Amino acid sequence: MKIEFLQQAIDLAIENPRNGGGPYGAVIVHNEQILASSANLVAKNNDPTAHAEVLAIRLACQKSNDFRLTDCVLYSSCEPCPMCLGAIYWARLKEVYFACNRLDAAKAGFDDSFIYEEIQLAPEQRKIPMLQIEIADANKPFQAWNTYPGKIPY
Amino acid sequence: MKIEFLQQAIDLAIENPRNGGGPYGAVIVHNEQILASSANLVAKNNDPTAHAEVLAIRLACQKSNDFRLTDCVLYSSCEPCPMCLGAIYWARLKEVYFACNRLDAAKAGFDDSFIYEEIQLAPEQRKIPMLQIEIADANKPFQAWNTYPGKIPY
Repeated sequence: MKIEFLQQAIDLAIENPRNGGGPYGAVIVHNEQILASSANLVAKNNDPTAHAEVLAIRLACQKSNDFRLTDCVLYSSCEPCPMCLGAIYWARLKEVYFACNRLDAAKAGFDDSFIYEEIQLAPEQRKIPMLQIEIADANKPFQAWNTYPGKIPY
Repeated sequence: MKIEFLQQAIDLAIENPRNGGGPYGAVIVHNEQILASSANLVAKNNDPTAHAEVLAIRLACQKSNDFRLTDCVLYSSCEPCPMCLGAIYWARLKEVYFACNRLDAAKAGFDDSFIYEEIQLAPEQRKIPMLQIEIADANKPFQAWNTYPGKIPY
């Protein structure tokens, strides 16, 4: 952990509201060098997935031409929300360091803490109901995946 | 719920492995019309966040010029993973319908179920350690956000 990378994530987050973005910043480090960084661009890009962590991960993957960031460390101005946490696992990052936490985000009016609560409920009991529907072809995509010799596992 | 939209999500998912993508598809519906749809493009785009649901949400937001999809319904070939679940909340979707669930995904070799387990652990106890670091400027981004009159809340 190098505190200057966390400071850079925070500096991005402090600067960002006056540029039309949210108060979040993230930096991805590989071999003690910054590989990618981003602030939050949700409102600016009309993209609810444009959190700082997601954008930094996407950028780092483009730069390294790989969908995995196995040896990389993420520094974030705030604890990653569940969406960003999922992205961190899919990207196979090594470690994550953050400054504020989900409760600080909630105090500032963001839903991080609420989504952490929702995710623990049964899908059908959530505020946004999520319902499994029985349908004959449900397993056909995984069958197509398992039997296709040219697939790219990820 | 209209079963033909779920069938379309599944059909995208069945077709996708032979195009270099993962076995997932998603369709977003507004006023009983398809607004956007996508298959999984993780390996194809070198983007670990390019799940079908995330891509469909991003596309629907671009089309509607809004970072919220308040009156829209998502149909997915599989239960959304935690990353996609987070994206669904941030996009403020109305309802979600899916065919397979996280256990079916796990059987096919995908980490959905594992990430659902990880998210319930304390951040520092996860397989990817996530550590809060004390730093003087931690709350400055939220202070900058709260005091900036021109901010765009999202």
